[in-house]
Amino acid sequence: ITLWRISRNRWIACFFIGVITALVAALIDIGVHYSKDIKFNWILKYLISKCDEEQRGTTSGCMWTVMIAWIAYNCILVTIASCLVIFVAPIAGGSGIPQIKCYLNGIAIPEVVRPQQIFFYVTSNKKIIAEFGVACSVGGGLAAGKEGPMIHSGAVVGAGVSQGKSYSLGIDFGIFKEFRNDRERRDFVSAGAAAGVAAAFGAPIGGVLFSLEEGASFWNQNLTWRMFLSSMISSFTVNCILGWFNGRSGWLSWNGLANFGVFENKDYNVWEIPIFLLIGIIGGVLGALFNYLNTRLTEFRKTYVNSKFGRLFECLLVAAVSAFLAFLTIFAVDDCQPIGRNPTATSTQINQMWCRKGEYSAVASLFFQNPEESVKSLFHSPINSFGVPTLIIFAIEYFLLTLWTFGIAVPSGVFIPAILTGAAWGRLFGIYVERLFPSVTGIDPGKYALAGAAAQLGGVVRMTISLTAIIMEATKDITFGLPIMLVLMITKWVGDMFNEGLYDSHIDLAEVPILGWNPPKMSRNILADKVMRRDVVALERRERVSRIVEILKTTLHHGFPVVDRIEESVTQTLPDYGRLKGYILRTQLFKLLENRVFDEEHASESIPIDFSECQDDDDQNSQIDQLGLSSYDESCWLNIEPFMHPHPHRVPLNTSLPFIFRLFRGLGLRYLFVVNDDNKLRGVITRKDVARFREKRRNREYQVDELYISQ
Amino acid sequence: ITLWRISRNRWIACFFIGVITALVAALIDIGVHYSKDIKFNWILKYLISKCDEEQRGTTSGCMWTVMIAWIAYNCILVTIASCLVIFVAPIAGGSGIPQIKCYLNGIAIPEVVRPQQIFFYVTSNKKIIAEFGVACSVGGGLAAGKEGPMIHSGAVVGAGVSQGKSYSLGIDFGIFKEFRNDRERRDFVSAGAAAGVAAAFGAPIGGVLFSLEEGASFWNQNLTWRMFLSSMISSFTVNCILGWFNGRSGWLSWNGLANFGVFENKDYNVWEIPIFLLIGIIGGVLGALFNYLNTRLTEFRKTYVNSKFGRLFECLLVAAVSAFLAFLTIFAVDDCQPIGRNPTATSTQINQMWCRKGEYSAVASLFFQNPEESVKSLFHSPINSFGVPTLIIFAIEYFLLTLWTFGIAVPSGVFIPAILTGAAWGRLFGIYVERLFPSVTGIDPGKYALAGAAAQLGGVVRMTISLTAIIMEATKDITFGLPIMLVLMITKWVGDMFNEGLYDSHIDLAEVPILGWNPPKMSRNILADKVMRRDVVALERRERVSRIVEILKTTLHHGFPVVDRIEESVTQTLPDYGRLKGYILRTQLFKLLENRVFDEEHASESIPIDFSECQDDDDQNSQIDQLGLSSYDESCWLNIEPFMHPHPHRVPLNTSLPFIFRLFRGLGLRYLFVVNDDNKLRGVITRKDVARFREKRRNREYQVDELYISQ
Repeated sequence: ITLWRISRNRWIACFFIGVITALVAALIDIGVHYSKDIKFNWILKYLISKCDEEQRGTTSGCMWTVMIAWIAYNCILVTIASCLVIFVAPIAGGSGIPQIKCYLNGIAIPEVVRPQQIFFYVTSNKKIIAEFGVACSVGGGLAAGKEGPMIHSGAVVGAGVSQGKSYSLGIDFGIFKEFRNDRERRDFVSAGAAAGVAAAFGAPIGGVLFSLEEGASFWNQNLTWRMFLSSMISSFTVNCILGWFNGRSGWLSWNGLANFGVFENKDYNVWEIPIFLLIGIIGGVLGALFNYLNTRLTEFRKTYVNSKFGRLFECLLVAAVSAFLAFLTIFAVDDCQPIGRNPTATSTQINQMWCRKGEYSAVASLFFQNPEESVKSLFHSPINSFGVPTLIIFAIEYFLLTLWTFGIAVPSGVFIPAILTGAAWGRLFGIYVERLFPSVTGIDPGKYALAGAAAQLGGVVRMTISLTAIIMEATKDITFGLPIMLVLMITKWVGDMFNEGLYDSHIDLAEVPILGWNPPKMSRNILADKVMRRDVVALERRERVSRIVEILKTTLHHGFPVVDRIEESVTQTLPDYGRLKGYILRTQLFKLLENRVFDEEHASESIPIDFSECQDDDDQNSQIDQLGLSSYDESCWLNIEPFMHPHPHRVPLNTSLPFIFRLFRGLGLRYLFVVNDDNKLRGVITRKDVARFREKRRNREYQVDELYISQ
Repeated sequence: ITLWRISRNRWIACFFIGVITALVAALIDIGVHYSKDIKFNWILKYLISKCDEEQRGTTSGCMWTVMIAWIAYNCILVTIASCLVIFVAPIAGGSGIPQIKCYLNGIAIPEVVRPQQIFFYVTSNKKIIAEFGVACSVGGGLAAGKEGPMIHSGAVVGAGVSQGKSYSLGIDFGIFKEFRNDRERRDFVSAGAAAGVAAAFGAPIGGVLFSLEEGASFWNQNLTWRMFLSSMISSFTVNCILGWFNGRSGWLSWNGLANFGVFENKDYNVWEIPIFLLIGIIGGVLGALFNYLNTRLTEFRKTYVNSKFGRLFECLLVAAVSAFLAFLTIFAVDDCQPIGRNPTATSTQINQMWCRKGEYSAVASLFFQNPEESVKSLFHSPINSFGVPTLIIFAIEYFLLTLWTFGIAVPSGVFIPAILTGAAWGRLFGIYVERLFPSVTGIDPGKYALAGAAAQLGGVVRMTISLTAIIMEATKDITFGLPIMLVLMITKWVGDMFNEGLYDSHIDLAEVPILGWNPPKMSRNILADKVMRRDVVALERRERVSRIVEILKTTLHHGFPVVDRIEESVTQTLPDYGRLKGYILRTQLFKLLENRVFDEEHASESIPIDFSECQDDDDQNSQIDQLGLSSYDESCWLNIEPFMHPHPHRVPLNTSLPFIFRLFRGLGLRYLFVVNDDNKLRGVITRKDVARFREKRRNREYQVDELYISQ
């Protein structure tokens, strides 16, 4: 009956993960909506109409006042976002996807990625950051999307809900205690990430695939099905809330936050396939270039921009430059279109800018909308809505702005900016294709804009199957599935010739030992003997309490092997361990001490102790002294045998690295003991030890490098 | 450079798997098309017009001639299909999905499932069967779909292409030799199955998810990506060929074989959700009922219908009854509709039947189309196109016919029949909802038909995420994704309360030891000691050739453990083995004997031997005598040590069953050695030994049963 309850609770937890993620997403969206509202409808409208009144007849002039107001407003919002990140929760900076990737891969290294505890227990703070921060950075006109951080929020919600408590809020609801261990939490984080994607793009299947592609190494039907529930509920809730917010409550066809609209003309022809392939190649090259430049920039930032105020200043600079550049472009590029030519563009007073009455500036309609709206108009507006120079300049500027924005200390995603950049050059491409083949009807530059968007995004993040699903779901269309797949496939091939995906580069920069999909090639001659660490701290089956206390105080290991005999070694400084008998977690030892399961002479008959919470990674380190163990207690013996895990994973000394790698990857291990031929403990291999070995390809020759990884 | 070549070849193989699967699928489709053409346009049209001439004025009468011709034609086609299955390739019967499931799960038990060699090397024969057989059974008017067998064909193509040879054709192309081992072949079979789904439903993402859900236990990005290529190419090729066949060459929006058409009215409302849930519950119950009855029927068949002619007779009976029932229903149910009311129905002369001029029989339009067309009209025709009695009778009849058809000796899938049944009762449901809420506009019974189809199919096969994707892709629609997911989720929950999915039931009936997703609950106290088999045949590191020959002759084991010392045991009949040192495959030993790597006294210094083909499962058993080993040869020694795998997977005696289960599931193991505390070999655990343990739930209490499995 307990098992049944646990299994039911998993579903309940996933349901709430979906709902809460959706709430967060909807709040962010509404925040963005209002910040846009304030900016356009209150500030700018007022100023422009004032300008109109004052200087009727003479254009420009007072427009610069508008620009100042615009820049100032953007800077204020970005300052809020940036301060939240820098001073409250540094982990909320960036898109958060690399962090989720690391976490799902099983990494929990305090000093390299942010401490796991901070990462996942800041739940409430983090959520606030994500909400306000993202809304601010998108509202602040940065070349940033709200989708990446939304995925991160989803993951955080997943961790928070499943644990049923929040450290930073100091609340423990006392529910879901059975999920307070590593494995379960990781499953819920995957579910949360899936829910985040589902909320961001209205793509439940894409969300599940995203979680699988980026994180889970083991396909488990039940887990996948629960992830599916989360993402489904999340999409559904977002649709409900936004449907209600937009005054169409009840109707559920409103689809996600990033709604790219539906294509009218859904056909494509065989001869267009090579064109799509070409777009894929361009996307691969541009994506690789983006990643290369952004990596260099991040390195530069790590070296020179590391003070808090330096980072804040950079954010402000980016905000100001973004806004200024937009104005400058609108001023410089003369692309005035008669109102009504493009039915999808919102032709507000603002877009008029330096154009005549009855016309609007196509450039302004790109810069002065939320990025999602701009994507929509690039996808769906008629062929002559945008001039060629507009598209060229917009694509280049947005590429550079995105490059600069990704990595500054605000919550910002790279999805939407990359899509926007790609849509711009894709549309440009489409216009030229149309000029090349003027006799062929049915060329819709929107199709090429979609392909370009997929190519640019694919080139940057190098996701494949999940990205296809996300784009298909976000455009609510399946017909273009095939070309999108082709584009993404080519893009990944081309991009991988140059460098890794953006997220992987950032993970590498952080020196995180993430395990890849396959063991490094040509590593068959590296044996366990070389991979393992010899400085193991082991326990005997009956240990003196004083020794246990000392070990708990002096080491930070997550658990300890138990051997049948420890002898001083004659040759080495490390003791000579006997046969491996078991494994006991640090938290279990702590619990045993707390309950004083000691005996003076004989082994105590196993007192039932509830270890249900013992896999929790809580930092109970500092509390050893608080147990108040007397010196009499410390002279007692503790019989570990009844409590230990009796058959930990072990391999012989001559095991090869690929074999070890597959054990870690396939079983999600954290440790592996190395024994000799007599089953005597000789060393331990952790995930980090395996991840040190990386393959490098030099002129088609593979080689294995051993990385230095900070401890 | 070799690694690079292998990796490139994998992609090439996947490309061809996609293309060939698509060719097979397109051929089947074209076959079905022509068989329909012959039936309707030649035979029936001729007869009906003759009837018209003879008996102008008096209805009926001569119609019975038409019926006889109809039944005769169907029986001839079904006889062909059935003979192909019964006399040429028995494995082609049924949908083939259970077999693929078993294969991907890692089962290869000669006597229980069909021999693996026959299963996968009949490639060419099998393909012919699948093509003609499926075309015949669908053309023959059975309640059968062409989709299930197409998935099977895909898998067979995957196996065939990747091995680069065909046993039954006796051709060895000499390519892809590096893929001739278990692991690689299994990967290609998944890719083939995905391509099959993609071809059948125009659902590339659904195909990949299907392969993952039904087969792969380990999510590998590269493998998934290759599967994706296969299914993409497959969809694409099918679209090209069928586009060309239907005279629209070049345009690629034609989508798969099972094209369910596009919904016009895509909105749904929150208050409709409970209705969808109700449909889910009904689907779960009906699906469970279907599975229960079909399982009983299959048991009955196993006992009483086991002669070849008995099976052939059953097929003919089913064909005749199906055709007769259709006629009877058309005659009995008076649902004449004016032509033009339903724009989606094809109003040919045939559908007129017993109706007046200018009208057509709605019943006939359901029975006298290919099932896919019927599904389309149930989904998309206007609300009053079908009378209530028509739908009730059609749903019941089709349910029963499908029940009877699934399991007879023709290639037949359950997908389309289940969808058709579900669409019929779903539409019925929709009509009643419309009558209940007459004031609400926008109720489209087609929506409910879609939900019903999903529910019925989900209730029968119990697939979840992949089925959602398939339905979404087959209807080219994403808006209904959420309700479909909800329906499938409820359906699975309800259905699982009663019994397993249809495929799993059939696997159980075949007594195949398939491993589930999770270890049986409450099995923590079952230790390796109890699971393992003690009758291990081991080798020493240096072994006399005569002993090896004898072992190869007397056992059928796939491989042998190598220990450091074998001693006669004083207490037991089995020898007392020393420390586990390695593992050597049967094929490797064979190769060593073939190359006569013997020495009289000293260990031969390792002669390089190419084992690249050695993981092939070919039955080289009979050939031992052909090696022509002299008695001098047999007195030599063979030094196994340089050739063996030096660190096979091992666990101690006290390992628990869940731990062992996870090793098998996570790493895809075939064997696991059990050693004692001194690392001495004590037993071996195979997949079969693990699969013997099944959980049973009795009144919320879990219990582990040990199955008897035939060796």
